[in-house]
Amino acid sequence: MTPAARIPDSEFQARLERTAKLTAEAGLDVLIVHSNEADFANVRYLSDYWPLFEAAGVLVAPNGATRLLIGPESETFARSRTRIAEVCKLVEYREPAEPDYPSIAVANFRNLIVEAIGHEPKRIGLAGCAVFPLPVYNGLREAFPQAELVKADNILFQQRAIKSPAEIACLKEAFRITRAATDEVLRRIKPGMTELQIAGISQSVIYAEGAEYEGLPQYVLSGPASAHAIGRAGYRQVQKGEIVQLNLSARVHGYSASIGVPVCLGKPSDAARRLLEFGLKAHDFTRTLMCPGTPARDVAIRYDEFVKREGFAEYQLYGPCHGLGMIEVERPWIETTSQYDLAPGMTFQLDTYFYTPEGSAFGRENGGAFGLRWENGCRITESGCELLSPAHTGLVEVDA
Amino acid sequence: MTPAARIPDSEFQARLERTAKLTAEAGLDVLIVHSNEADFANVRYLSDYWPLFEAAGVLVAPNGATRLLIGPESETFARSRTRIAEVCKLVEYREPAEPDYPSIAVANFRNLIVEAIGHEPKRIGLAGCAVFPLPVYNGLREAFPQAELVKADNILFQQRAIKSPAEIACLKEAFRITRAATDEVLRRIKPGMTELQIAGISQSVIYAEGAEYEGLPQYVLSGPASAHAIGRAGYRQVQKGEIVQLNLSARVHGYSASIGVPVCLGKPSDAARRLLEFGLKAHDFTRTLMCPGTPARDVAIRYDEFVKREGFAEYQLYGPCHGLGMIEVERPWIETTSQYDLAPGMTFQLDTYFYTPEGSAFGRENGGAFGLRWENGCRITESGCELLSPAHTGLVEVDA
Repeated sequence: MTPAARIPDSEFQARLERTAKLTAEAGLDVLIVHSNEADFANVRYLSDYWPLFEAAGVLVAPNGATRLLIGPESETFARSRTRIAEVCKLVEYREPAEPDYPSIAVANFRNLIVEAIGHEPKRIGLAGCAVFPLPVYNGLREAFPQAELVKADNILFQQRAIKSPAEIACLKEAFRITRAATDEVLRRIKPGMTELQIAGISQSVIYAEGAEYEGLPQYVLSGPASAHAIGRAGYRQVQKGEIVQLNLSARVHGYSASIGVPVCLGKPSDAARRLLEFGLKAHDFTRTLMCPGTPARDVAIRYDEFVKREGFAEYQLYGPCHGLGMIEVERPWIETTSQYDLAPGMTFQLDTYFYTPEGSAFGRENGGAFGLRWENGCRITESGCELLSPAHTGLVEVDA
Repeated sequence: MTPAARIPDSEFQARLERTAKLTAEAGLDVLIVHSNEADFANVRYLSDYWPLFEAAGVLVAPNGATRLLIGPESETFARSRTRIAEVCKLVEYREPAEPDYPSIAVANFRNLIVEAIGHEPKRIGLAGCAVFPLPVYNGLREAFPQAELVKADNILFQQRAIKSPAEIACLKEAFRITRAATDEVLRRIKPGMTELQIAGISQSVIYAEGAEYEGLPQYVLSGPASAHAIGRAGYRQVQKGEIVQLNLSARVHGYSASIGVPVCLGKPSDAARRLLEFGLKAHDFTRTLMCPGTPARDVAIRYDEFVKREGFAEYQLYGPCHGLGMIEVERPWIETTSQYDLAPGMTFQLDTYFYTPEGSAFGRENGGAFGLRWENGCRITESGCELLSPAHTGLVEVDA
C-alpha cells in the first residue's frame, strides 16, 4: 500500500526560501545543515534525502543557492530522492569505515562554498549541532581558518515546530499504520513469545500497511524492562501476569508516529493496576491543558502539581510531553523550564511515563520493578488539541 | 527463537583490559569512545550497550578504570544491558531534541574523569571520531581547556579487525537468518508488490528466526534503483523483466550480516544477463585472492586488472571487499591504497557491485539504468577463506 499523503515540491521550495531568508537575517554568509542516518530530520526537511551508512548535509546561502552534500557512494540514490537539484560529493560525509575511494572524484568545501556564495565566508552557521561530527566541522575549519562557526539550530527548529497540513496528513497516516500494528499485536501476543518476535509482528504489519520505515525501534518491553524510559526489545519471553509495554511505530515520508500502551498479560498485580490507572488519569489530565496560547512551562508545572497531589511524584522521571514530527522525539519538549507558548500547528506526544525506582513501595508490592507509558500524538488547533489516534479509554488486558 | 551464539562476559573483560593497555601504550591519560544509534559498534564492543535516541560513550583509563557514559533517560535500560559496572549520566549524551531534564541529576566530565584517573588529564584520546559530535567534544574541551584531544580510533580498530570464535559464531547465525529471509522473499516476490512490502516480508522472517535487529535497512532496489550503491526500499512496484537487487540483513548480538543477490523477475535483457554473469564471475575471482598474508592492496589491484581485462571497468565504482563485523561495512576496506595484509580472523564482505553509469552502452541496451551486487561474507582462515553463507552458483531467476 502506498500512502496518499506526501510533501509536495512546492513545500520543499518554500522551506528552502524561508531558510535562505532566515540565514540572511541571522547575519550568516552560509548555513551548513547536518544529519546522519539516525537523526535524519534537518537534511530531509530541506531535501527529502535521508542518508544511510554515509552522512549528509544541505548548504543554503542568503542568495538562494542550495546544494545537497553527500558522501562518495550515494550519488545515484541521492539524485533519485532529492528535491534539491545540485548534489555534491564530499569525503567529509563518507562512511565511518573511512574508505579512501581512490577512483571517485569529490568536491571540497572551499571551492564549493566560495562558488555558491561568490566570496569567502566570514560567518558560517551550523545546524544539527547535536550530531555535527568532527570530520565535517574540521573540514569547514580547515577550508576557512578565519571564519567564525556559529550554532544556528534555531533556523531549522523554528520552521519544523509548526506543521503544515501536508505534514499533519503524513503524521496521521503514520498513526493509522501504528494503530493497525498495535491491534494485530494485541490479537497475537502470547506468553512464551520473545519481545523480539512480537516486534517482528509489528514490523510485518507496518510495511504491509505502507510505512517507509519504523519511526523508532518497536518497543516491546516486558516485566522489569517495562520500567525502561528508553529501551529495546530483547530475547526475554513475555510472561503471564506481567506488563508488556508496547510503543510500536511507523514512519511515512519522514514523519514518525508511536502509540504507547501498557498491556496486562492476564491479571496484573494490585500495585501495577493502581499505577496503570493513575497513569491513564494523568494522561487524560495533560490533554485538558493543551490549548493554544498556554505557556508550555505551565503545562509541565500543572502536571507536576497533579502528580504530586495524587501521591505519585516518586514514580515520575520527566515532564508530560515532547515535540513530535520527523523524529518521534523532537524539539520542543514541554518542561518546567520551557520558554514558549503552545501555538496552532504544533504537534506533541502526550508521553505519560511512570516507573518504580529501586526500593519503591509499588515495585516491592508488585514483586519487582515495572513501568508504563501511555502515549499518543496530538496537534494544537485554534481552540484546543486534536488527538492523532483514538484515545486510550481503559486498561488493556489480554487473556493469557 | 533465541540464538545460541553470544559474546561471554570474559571476552568483554579481555577487550576492556586490552583497551586500557593500548591506551597506556599510546601515552594517553584516558580514552573516550563514542557511538550513536546508527554507528553503535565501538561502545557496544566494550560494553554491549547500544543506545537509541541518546548517544553513549565508554571511558577507559590506563589504570583499568572503566565507565559507561549515557544520557539522562537511559539509566535502567543501560544497566540491564551493560557489561561495565559503573554507569554515569551526562547531559552531553542527551537526545538531539536537547531536553533540559530539570529533575534528573547528571555527572560532569571534569569530576568524572579526575575521579577515574586520579589526576587532571593532559592527553585525552578520542575513538569513534567519524561520528564524534560537537556537544561531547566541547564538553571535554571545556572541562580540560589545557588538555590535548587526540584521535585514537586505532585502539578500537585494531582489536575489532580480528574476530574471535564467539564473534564468528554470531556472524554465522546472522548469515543463517539472512539466508532464511532471502529464501522466503524469493518464494513470495511478485510483480506489483512495492519494494517496501518485500522489505516487510524480510523483516517478518528475521525477527521470527532470532535476529535482534536488521544489520542494515533491507535493500529491495528494483529497476533503475538497482543501480544505487547505497539505497533504500521505496514505494515503487517491482515489474516483470527487471532486476530486483536484494541485500537483506539480520543482526545477532551486535554482529551484522547481509547477502546480496540480484533477482531477475522473469527473463532479463541480454545486456542485464551479460553484466549479471560477469558480476558473478568477478565475485568468484575475488574469493580466490583471499588468502592470509596477501597484501590487501594486491587483492584490489588484481581485481581491477581482471575487470579491466574483461572490459567492464566502466561499470565499476569501488573495490572488491570491505570489512564486516558489528557494522555491515566496517574497517578495513580492501582498496588499491590499503596498507595491511590479510590475516586469519579477519572477516570481509565480498562485495561485487557493478552499475550502468549515465550514457553507458549496457544501460541503453537494457532500456534504462540498472545495477547488481553479489555479496557474501567470508572469514580469512589459516589457509584461505571460508564463506559465511553458501556460495551463489548462478543467476537467480524467478517466474513472473
